[in-house]
Amino acid sequence: MKNTPTQSRRQFLQKAALGGALAGTISLPILANTDKLEFPDNLPEWMRKPGGEFGNYGQPSKHEQNVIRWISANPAAPGNGVSWTPLHDLQGTITPNGLHYERHHNGVPQIDPEQHILLIDGLVEKPIRFDIKSLMRYPMVSKTCFIECGGNSNSGWRSNPIQSQAGYAHGLVSNAEWTGIPLKLLLKEAGIKSTATWVIAEGADAAALNISIPLEKLLDDALLALYQNGERLRPENGYPMRLVLPGWEGILNVKWLRQLRLTDEPIMSRDETSQYTELLPDGTARQFTFINEAKSLITSPSLGMMLPDNPGIYQISGLAWSGRGKITRVEISADGGDNWVDAELQGPVLDKAFTRFSLPWHWQGEYAILQSRATDETGYVQPTREALVENRGKHGFFHYNAIVSWEITEEGDINHVYGF
Amino acid sequence: MKNTPTQSRRQFLQKAALGGALAGTISLPILANTDKLEFPDNLPEWMRKPGGEFGNYGQPSKHEQNVIRWISANPAAPGNGVSWTPLHDLQGTITPNGLHYERHHNGVPQIDPEQHILLIDGLVEKPIRFDIKSLMRYPMVSKTCFIECGGNSNSGWRSNPIQSQAGYAHGLVSNAEWTGIPLKLLLKEAGIKSTATWVIAEGADAAALNISIPLEKLLDDALLALYQNGERLRPENGYPMRLVLPGWEGILNVKWLRQLRLTDEPIMSRDETSQYTELLPDGTARQFTFINEAKSLITSPSLGMMLPDNPGIYQISGLAWSGRGKITRVEISADGGDNWVDAELQGPVLDKAFTRFSLPWHWQGEYAILQSRATDETGYVQPTREALVENRGKHGFFHYNAIVSWEITEEGDINHVYGF
Repeated sequence: MKNTPTQSRRQFLQKAALGGALAGTISLPILANTDKLEFPDNLPEWMRKPGGEFGNYGQPSKHEQNVIRWISANPAAPGNGVSWTPLHDLQGTITPNGLHYERHHNGVPQIDPEQHILLIDGLVEKPIRFDIKSLMRYPMVSKTCFIECGGNSNSGWRSNPIQSQAGYAHGLVSNAEWTGIPLKLLLKEAGIKSTATWVIAEGADAAALNISIPLEKLLDDALLALYQNGERLRPENGYPMRLVLPGWEGILNVKWLRQLRLTDEPIMSRDETSQYTELLPDGTARQFTFINEAKSLITSPSLGMMLPDNPGIYQISGLAWSGRGKITRVEISADGGDNWVDAELQGPVLDKAFTRFSLPWHWQGEYAILQSRATDETGYVQPTREALVENRGKHGFFHYNAIVSWEITEEGDINHVYGF
Repeated sequence: MKNTPTQSRRQFLQKAALGGALAGTISLPILANTDKLEFPDNLPEWMRKPGGEFGNYGQPSKHEQNVIRWISANPAAPGNGVSWTPLHDLQGTITPNGLHYERHHNGVPQIDPEQHILLIDGLVEKPIRFDIKSLMRYPMVSKTCFIECGGNSNSGWRSNPIQSQAGYAHGLVSNAEWTGIPLKLLLKEAGIKSTATWVIAEGADAAALNISIPLEKLLDDALLALYQNGERLRPENGYPMRLVLPGWEGILNVKWLRQLRLTDEPIMSRDETSQYTELLPDGTARQFTFINEAKSLITSPSLGMMLPDNPGIYQISGLAWSGRGKITRVEISADGGDNWVDAELQGPVLDKAFTRFSLPWHWQGEYAILQSRATDETGYVQPTREALVENRGKHGFFHYNAIVSWEITEEGDINHVYGF
């Protein structure tokens, strides 16, 4: 029984009624059959000779060489594009630095940190310049949070569901421990004039990417980040310094930051006018839509995996996040949204950070539609695709956060379908 | 005024009385002089040409190539030794996977995960074998915790203070988000016989490292870890699977795990008899000292750094951890332990994990002895070196957790000294 995107709602529900049992607790045994697993009589090869030497800086196993960022760049301008975090291959909540998603407009600048200067000017009492050495004198704090591109998941606006792996459709989002200087300290040291309301941030890449940010956010929880998961930033994540604006769309987290100019109005740059501004069905425009609303995604099982031929207990696992605070609830449906069961949230649940959820599922070989639905601490509930499209129109591009539906066929194949 | 290890206690206290002001709050400005920092008139080179391309798996900046694990291996047996995490170069609390410390007895085995089997046998109802594919069917949880070698910091037992950088004397400890299967699920699936009290764990390296672990710990919070900071384990950290025993000394966190044999007594292997067992001054022996007690370390400023020639405000920053639970307090002294001020703890403070502490310090060019002292939620307070040596004797080797003292000279040089 193979599903197609053109199925009717009635067919969908008919099939989805067979979704299998979602369990609230773990039951044993998990394994139906272990007889085929043999403990070798002879020691494996790697126990019969000395292993490899120590390394100054480690790398993943060669057996994991398929766990990579998938690159979608412009062939005519190879430094313009994205690379996707393989969320379907990862577990836990931290994105390792080698796999943090990328979005570049004109490539990754190779910046000599000794020559890099950050300037704060505009509506300040005293323009102030910092080099790395000076910045290291300031107090630092750490914040574990996600950064998500405003364009993440935007294939969801297409008429037909894209058949890409979970991370390669939704992985323009990553989660890391960022450490740096609270921006408010640096701004206060420059002296903020009372007329200042916006800040124009500019990066030191060859696109000189610039964008307007409300001053209020920079005085709240914004960081000038210097470290990413403990070590100095990676070049593709802004080395030697970047903005981190917890919960706000990726482009505002300006990489390779070189200038913050305080102003009394936005600059109306390319990336806040021709991009990141969208017409709504009623003719008005969405602009300055900074916050990434609550969202979730089942990463396992998901497209590209296959359930084995023996029915049994499987673990549903995924990620939820919200730019407005903590995730308070994730529900799972195996029948396309008719019935929902609360998943377990892995603690500690952190503000504006990935939260891992999980739920055991007793799959008995029946057709199913798996979905997850996140709720955050403001009470906001992740919308269905139907509701999102009704609200935002069919030609959206940014901030797609609808429920994702994975179809499980009776053969254990997994497809992406649009739920209702 | 240059300190030497042979100074008398009176000289030490006389100098240390000049330790400078430890502040509880941050005051601005930090920078005494910014005039020398110039924002270039011309765009830097990297803004005048397109940057580098996207990468499937990222690497640190070439400008950070000195941030490495320092290797101390046996020249005659290059797979036997350690490599140290450069704690003095890191910030935040996560240790990136490339820099997690290593301790190998016969090198890093290059294991084909398809051929790797974990066997649970001994005092069980039914011996059970797992391959990777089967294990992926089990529920996973994540735990951010440190792993520390029992031999970390053991240069502290020497008569004279070693002049190594903070991480290269104390960096056989790292902190990561580990994700895997609660061991108790796998043990329960095998069926634990009532006579079982110990478990012999064996690794699939060429040393076939084996060691005894109380069953109780494996039924508590132990994990069969498959993921490290989101991605699959690194080869040097146990790929494809390892034990993680939060708070317990490194060697028990057996890497490349291939077998768990349940028994009613420890096996008395090399690493719990000729090693990891120590004579005390009273003639009795310490054995099975599993838990890493509370400890802390100032990572900045620390040896190998130098305070600039201009006195001013500096940030004292470091790490604290305890194998018994959460860190509740870290105090800082700038006068060799006469006066203490509470440092700020960076949240979230997690159980058995690195906690970053910080405190602003107004250094006015005077001689100082910086120390940090950790307290954990059991009320245990990190001891002075004097107290540790009195309790454990002069010939200890394992579990050195005394307060570390950094001497700051009037010239801003930093040396390691022994406090009292």
